Amino acid sequence: MPRQITYLNGEFVPHEKAFVHVDDRGFTFADGIYDFILVHKGCLINEEAHLDRIDYSLGEMQIEWPLSRDDLKTTLREMVRRNELVEGFVYMQFTRGVAPRDHPFPPKDTKPTAVITARHMPFATWEQAAKGVGVLTLPDERWKRCDIKSLAILPNILAREKAVRAGAAEAWMFDEDGFITEGPACNAWIITKDGTVVTRHLDRAILSGVTRRKLRAVLQSQGITLEERKFSVEEAKNAAEAYLTNSPYLVKPVTKIDDTVIGTGQAGPVTLKILKAYRAALEEQCDTRSNQ
Amino acid sequence: MPRQITYLNGEFVPHEKAFVHVDDRGFTFADGIYDFILVHKGCLINEEAHLDRIDYSLGEMQIEWPLSRDDLKTTLREMVRRNELVEGFVYMQFTRGVAPRDHPFPPKDTKPTAVITARHMPFATWEQAAKGVGVLTLPDERWKRCDIKSLAILPNILAREKAVRAGAAEAWMFDEDGFITEGPACNAWIITKDGTVVTRHLDRAILSGVTRRKLRAVLQSQGITLEERKFSVEEAKNAAEAYLTNSPYLVKPVTKIDDTVIGTGQAGPVTLKILKAYRAALEEQCDTRSNQ
Repeated sequence: MPRQITYLNGEFVPHEKAFVHVDDRGFTFADGIYDFILVHKGCLINEEAHLDRIDYSLGEMQIEWPLSRDDLKTTLREMVRRNELVEGFVYMQFTRGVAPRDHPFPPKDTKPTAVITARHMPFATWEQAAKGVGVLTLPDERWKRCDIKSLAILPNILAREKAVRAGAAEAWMFDEDGFITEGPACNAWIITKDGTVVTRHLDRAILSGVTRRKLRAVLQSQGITLEERKFSVEEAKNAAEAYLTNSPYLVKPVTKIDDTVIGTGQAGPVTLKILKAYRAALEEQCDTRSNQ
Repeated sequence: MPRQITYLNGEFVPHEKAFVHVDDRGFTFADGIYDFILVHKGCLINEEAHLDRIDYSLGEMQIEWPLSRDDLKTTLREMVRRNELVEGFVYMQFTRGVAPRDHPFPPKDTKPTAVITARHMPFATWEQAAKGVGVLTLPDERWKRCDIKSLAILPNILAREKAVRAGAAEAWMFDEDGFITEGPACNAWIITKDGTVVTRHLDRAILSGVTRRKLRAVLQSQGITLEERKFSVEEAKNAAEAYLTNSPYLVKPVTKIDDTVIGTGQAGPVTLKILKAYRAALEEQCDTRSNQ
């Protein structure tokens, strides 16, 4: 594996030499956004959907693209190449740039900061992917614009840490009415006893997950009914199956919520069917695209 | 004025050379806290109260002090000396440190990051201090732990920007029931027609402002009654007087809320009495302490 190379404001630098100024608004104010893309077989999975989301997050925060979308695509490929990345991720972080610390937006000519890092991580085997995890439910303490993938994810970090300490892989957070929103780094799904898949509808309380979006077509192809609506912690604990989605995990069976075992305590058949179909769709995406 | 010197993890460096690694959790996750202290006549105003608040914020986030409280006090004095700071601020930012990007807390031996910067700013003349400002009311979109002075202040930034664009000096944010919480960088106060001062009680929706805390004794010394309770936007607009408090502004008359002129449109007599008494208390603090 080669030395890790990081992209920083137009330059490719050894990762250990990638530094930003202490006046970067990403450092002082969490004034920026991020996203990351799964790399499988050297292919940037669901790239356009991730770039669409970056465009949305930047737009909502009125931050200019630090480099054009086309230049970003070229740069992502260069990152894959320089890091000899076959399985792993590219992580992108864009901030409003460096300016003397003051709340209001800096002058228009302030250049946004762009950081892209690469990370190697083996693609999960079927056995690893199909293994269930536990989640811990917690009150959702985040801000009211979780549709923006901003850097202000301290509440997510604190929730995730609590989950890990409780021996769970992830947290599922619930709103003031007891309805599950999402996890600090995933969307939450349940499957009812009649085989209907349920996930919260999109609003400002949750992120529009790329896996979540892509899964719609997969569910349809499998003849599985999807309901997008709120569901409570109580309903989740009584569900036939449950799973979570995000780019690293794809579709991860959830076999325990707090102390409640879900279904048989093993990954359920519908979840496994969805996981299998989604993994097949990814392989197809890698095979049909020559995006490297 | 000398070249600006910044403290960074034990070193004093020229400000333009103060950089942190892109893996600093303050940059990736807003996983840190900050505070700043007014410097007047070279004296660190309300220093102990600010250090108490830092201790609280770090404690709630389970971040270790990057340097001991005593060492911090020594360092703050050194920053004042090296920057020849007579009037202005020292800003402190402490993060959970540098670690490969992963949500849960990093290993225990990860060293927290400490950055301290200095800023010169003239102390307001009485005329400047007594001049009223307008505030814009906005929904409070922040997270549920605003009692922690964390770096995740993106919502504050966005609110402040909206206020500035609307021609106001600050925003006052209101909760889902229409009650004012605070501003992105200040506590909010009103004075009723019978001369009672009202400010929201402390809870997790607002920061325990140092000026807010210090003002209690000032109000008492002036024979002014203080009520700590919720108040609505409506009540604020119908108040006799209004003001905001923070370390830069001290006690700032608010003469307009949205399009509503407060009182006569000039700083009110009770507000000016409080401002005068508070400024006198600061002078006394500088005179009686030899903390430089």
